[in-house]
Amino acid sequence: MNGNFKAVDDKHNKQSGFDDIIIGRNCVNEALRSGRQIDRIIISNGEHNGAIGPIISKCRKLGIPIKEVSPVKLDSMCSGANHQGIIAIAAAAEYSELDDIFSLAQKRQESPFIIIADELNDPHNLGAIIRTAEAAGSHGIIIPKRRAVGLTYAVSKAAAGALEYVPVVRVANIASCIDTLKKRGLWIYAADMGGTMWTKADLTGSIALVIGSEGYGVGRLIKEKCDGILSLPMNGHINSLNASVAAGILMYEISRQRMENNK
Amino acid sequence: MNGNFKAVDDKHNKQSGFDDIIIGRNCVNEALRSGRQIDRIIISNGEHNGAIGPIISKCRKLGIPIKEVSPVKLDSMCSGANHQGIIAIAAAAEYSELDDIFSLAQKRQESPFIIIADELNDPHNLGAIIRTAEAAGSHGIIIPKRRAVGLTYAVSKAAAGALEYVPVVRVANIASCIDTLKKRGLWIYAADMGGTMWTKADLTGSIALVIGSEGYGVGRLIKEKCDGILSLPMNGHINSLNASVAAGILMYEISRQRMENNK
Repeated sequence: MNGNFKAVDDKHNKQSGFDDIIIGRNCVNEALRSGRQIDRIIISNGEHNGAIGPIISKCRKLGIPIKEVSPVKLDSMCSGANHQGIIAIAAAAEYSELDDIFSLAQKRQESPFIIIADELNDPHNLGAIIRTAEAAGSHGIIIPKRRAVGLTYAVSKAAAGALEYVPVVRVANIASCIDTLKKRGLWIYAADMGGTMWTKADLTGSIALVIGSEGYGVGRLIKEKCDGILSLPMNGHINSLNASVAAGILMYEISRQRMENNK
Repeated sequence: MNGNFKAVDDKHNKQSGFDDIIIGRNCVNEALRSGRQIDRIIISNGEHNGAIGPIISKCRKLGIPIKEVSPVKLDSMCSGANHQGIIAIAAAAEYSELDDIFSLAQKRQESPFIIIADELNDPHNLGAIIRTAEAAGSHGIIIPKRRAVGLTYAVSKAAAGALEYVPVVRVANIASCIDTLKKRGLWIYAADMGGTMWTKADLTGSIALVIGSEGYGVGRLIKEKCDGILSLPMNGHINSLNASVAAGILMYEISRQRMENNK
């Protein structure tokens, strides 16, 4: 059976960039039983009967996000294989806890430097952000559980090995996570338009940088919680940059200021 | 016939990211006759007989790159449609001339600021570089004719509209193009390891920044022609960044120095 879903999986790869889809009730159940890291479960709309009910309960207990899609969408996600109403997307790396980020900063005797990637949907963007964060000296990345890409194989590939070294934490609520970070002494900056020019803010202390979604930027509620907005000048006609490029420019400015401050 | 190849085209899109493939001898010939912008021609290995011979001569006259691939590869590129040994990849935007770049700089009364993207193969990277270049105030991008992605539809999409505003020039030889730029008074910097820290070099004058390929960086011959190497510190364990992210960080440092210099 394993061999069989692998074939479907490979076929799927070419079309979507997903690298590990676990298809059907028994396979999903076995993956959960074996303790394999699952990024999320996807079920057909309203499919709660039979063997799926207990799987859903198990996922809720384990904190694995469950997403409902139309049966047609689910068919296309697994290239027409018999999914019995449920598939699981395997995670390419283990998620860490918030304390792992603070421990890493403490171990390096540095003030915490955290990236919050809110609602990114493109695996190349999240992967490139994780890669740049590791190179810029960040201690960890925080992503939301829902409405965002997780640590899929496509993200892992784009991160080019950085997932081995930098903790990625997944939280249910970014706003309340920001409150926690503030209590722990971090200054929170959002990357957006109309704020302080990126080189004019003091970015040397304990800091978290919020990167918004590709289409909509940082949400209003999150922005209101931030201590400041960092902006890049748009010198031409277009009015935004690719999320991972903007994040990279800001991360390296934070890195530069921290290096010069430590001299 | 148009409707027919469009259907194949749409099917192909989902699998490769190409947006406009012109399939078969007649269609390619018509596209050339109509003056449509062609990014490159792809033919089956050794296929020079019949109607293909005159098409190849025409492409050589027009300076359109011709690439030979195996028949199997060509089959897969057009999802098994009857390609008769030849396809053309349409360009999503017109290429400019080197003088267009200098004219734009002169019009804005600025010293030229040029990006040379050497042998990039990922359309997302080239697109993101064009987008960032436009926003950072660059006057144009130079790419090589061969061994690199051209202005395909995937690049255009990733450039998010920037192709409307910034000229992209395609040259047969990057090394001799660098010689031309030097004669016109530009300083040439390459993005690579082991050079000057990115904020420590004077980047205020007429400048061209060379970005190397995703896998191999800037080639040795090109690097030897450069006036300097700009490097980003790698503070973690991994030793390189995504090409478009690294390019973005360096472009915005050039932009910052130019702005501060003009105060």
